[in-house]
Amino acid sequence: LSKPVTIALDAMGGDHGVSVSVPAALRMLGKQPLLEIILVGQRDAIEAVLKEERHDRLHIHEASQVVGMDERPADALRKKKDSSMRVAINLVKEGAAHACVSAGNTGALMATSRFVLKTVPGIDRPAIMAIVPTKTGRTYMLDLGANAECTSEQLFQFAVMGAVVVRDLEEIHHEPSVGLLNIGEEDIKGNDTIREAARMLSESSLNYVGFIEGNSIADQKADVVVCDGFSGNIALKSMEGTAKLVAHFLEREFRGSPYGWFAGLVALPLLRSLRKRLDPRRYNGASLVGLNGIVVKSHGSADALAMAQAIDVATLEVEKSVPEQIRQRMERQAH
Amino acid sequence: LSKPVTIALDAMGGDHGVSVSVPAALRMLGKQPLLEIILVGQRDAIEAVLKEERHDRLHIHEASQVVGMDERPADALRKKKDSSMRVAINLVKEGAAHACVSAGNTGALMATSRFVLKTVPGIDRPAIMAIVPTKTGRTYMLDLGANAECTSEQLFQFAVMGAVVVRDLEEIHHEPSVGLLNIGEEDIKGNDTIREAARMLSESSLNYVGFIEGNSIADQKADVVVCDGFSGNIALKSMEGTAKLVAHFLEREFRGSPYGWFAGLVALPLLRSLRKRLDPRRYNGASLVGLNGIVVKSHGSADALAMAQAIDVATLEVEKSVPEQIRQRMERQAH
Repeated sequence: LSKPVTIALDAMGGDHGVSVSVPAALRMLGKQPLLEIILVGQRDAIEAVLKEERHDRLHIHEASQVVGMDERPADALRKKKDSSMRVAINLVKEGAAHACVSAGNTGALMATSRFVLKTVPGIDRPAIMAIVPTKTGRTYMLDLGANAECTSEQLFQFAVMGAVVVRDLEEIHHEPSVGLLNIGEEDIKGNDTIREAARMLSESSLNYVGFIEGNSIADQKADVVVCDGFSGNIALKSMEGTAKLVAHFLEREFRGSPYGWFAGLVALPLLRSLRKRLDPRRYNGASLVGLNGIVVKSHGSADALAMAQAIDVATLEVEKSVPEQIRQRMERQAH
Repeated sequence: LSKPVTIALDAMGGDHGVSVSVPAALRMLGKQPLLEIILVGQRDAIEAVLKEERHDRLHIHEASQVVGMDERPADALRKKKDSSMRVAINLVKEGAAHACVSAGNTGALMATSRFVLKTVPGIDRPAIMAIVPTKTGRTYMLDLGANAECTSEQLFQFAVMGAVVVRDLEEIHHEPSVGLLNIGEEDIKGNDTIREAARMLSESSLNYVGFIEGNSIADQKADVVVCDGFSGNIALKSMEGTAKLVAHFLEREFRGSPYGWFAGLVALPLLRSLRKRLDPRRYNGASLVGLNGIVVKSHGSADALAMAQAIDVATLEVEKSVPEQIRQRMERQAH
C-alpha cells in the first residue's frame, strides 16, 4: 500500500460470521502495515472471538442487526437499517471507510449498496465481477448474477467497466480485450440483445474481440468476458461444479485401491500444487462494480484465508480508485 | 438389439467427414448383429475410405451435396436439397431408416429435421438433449442450444420430454426427477419465465424437485435438468472448458519436473482411468428431441469411437420408440 486504506468489514455476514471475519481481519492487518479495518457488527460477538487479542489498527463499530443469508433483499433494505451490512456500506458513503467487504447475502448486498451509494453516472445497474483461472493466467467475468435480464446497453456498460478494472488491477498497458459470452462464434448466434451489444462494442473504442463460447473462457481469448447475470452465474457455477467433480473423481481413483493409495502418496506434492492453482479461495472477492464506492463480496462459505483475499481485492481497488476511473471512462464514452 | 434397426448416417458431416463416419459405421456393425447402416453421401469419397472392406449390412446412398460447418441453417435448407444431411433425414421421414445420425452443422441439422420431420403434437420446438457425468452417475440436460430464447411453456415441454427419455433410456422405474437450471434455489430467483415454468411444473404430474444451480448439476440433484438453449449451451461448454483446464494443469504438473515425470508414471493408470471417466466421447450423441423421428447429433470433432457412441444412442432410442413415447405422454398431458 502506498497510502493508508480503511476497510469496513461486515463482521456478521456469511455462513460463519465473526468466526471467519475476525481472523481474516487480523491476518490482513499483519500483512499490510498501512491498512485499518473497522469490524462492523455486534460488539459482544466480535470481542468473544478477539478475546485478549487487540490491534491498534482494528476498530469495532456497533451494528445491532444481521441480514439473514436467505432474507429477501427488499426486506433487508426496509427492515434492517442497523444491520452490519448496511452500516458498513454507510461508512463508505460517509467517507469513514474507503471500501466495504461483506460475505453476506448477495442480493441484499447489491440492493443496499445501490440504494446507499448509487451508480456512477452513465451506469444503469451495477454488476458483479469476479476472476476465473485460465490456462495462461486469469480472466474477469461480469455480470455474474446481479442482473438476471440485461439490455444491450447494459452489456455495453459492463464491457466498459470490465475494461477499466482489468487495466487498473492487472496493470496491463494495452487496451484490455473484451469478449461477449455467446452460444457460438458466428455473428448470427445468440439473441437480438447480444447481437446489438456486439454491434455497439465493435463501433466503440474498446478492444472488442467478438463472441466467446463457454469452453473458450479458459483459453484466455479475452481479458474481460461480458455476459448477462443469468448466463454468467450459470457459467461460473458450472465451472465450479466441474472442478469439484474432477477433484472428487481424482480422490476416488487415489483412494480406490492399495496401488492408488501408493500412487497418490507419490503424486501428493503435485496434486497439492494443482489444488492450490484451482483453489477457489485464491479467486475470492467479487467486486460490485458501477457504484460510487467500492464494495467487495466474499463467498458466503469463505474461510479466513479466502476472506483475506477479498479484503485484498478491495484494498487494491482503493489504491487504483476504481469507481473514479469508471466515472472518467463513462464521461469520455459519452462525448 | 431385440429387432433389426436401420440407421441413416450422414457420412459427410463433421470436421472429419468420411474418415470418421465410415470407420464408426464398421465398428458399430461389428458390435450389433441386427444393425444396418446406410452411409449417406458421395459414393466416391465413401468408397475411397472403405477400400476393399465390404459389409453386407452396410449400404451406400448417394447424396451429391455437403452442408458446410459454418453454413447458415436457412441456406442449407434452401440450397442443399441433395445434401448428405438432408437425404439422411429424408430416409427417416420415408421410413427407409429408423433414425439419422449426423456430425454436421447443428443449426442446419435442427432446421432441416424440423422442416422434414415436424414436431410431435404439443411440442412447439425441438430441443437438444445430452448427458453429463455426475458424482454418482449421469444426468440429462436440455435444451443445449436449439432455442436461444424460450417461453415457460417450452421449458415445461422440455421437462416432459426429458422425463420420458430418461425413463426409457435409463430404464428407471420411478418417475424421473426434474429440476430447472437457475441462478439460485429460492423461489424468487431468476426471471418471470423461469418462475412461471416452475409453477407449471410443480402443478404437473412430473416429479419436479425445484431450481438447480450450475454447481449442483454434478451432484445429481435431478435426473433431468431443464434450461433454455442459451444458458444450457453456456453451462455445458463451461463444464467442458473446465474439465480441459484441469487436465491441462494436471499435465503441466506431471511434466514440469523430473519428480513430476516419475510421479506421473506411477499415477498413469489412475490418470488414464480418470480420463476415461470424463472422456467426452463417452457422452457423445445429443438427441434432437420432440421430432416425429429420431435424429442424433454427434460432436463435430468426434472421432470414430465417439461417433459409434452417437450411433448407439440412436439405436437405443429406436428400440425404445422415444418419439412415440413423447407423443403419448404429451397426449396424456393434454387431458
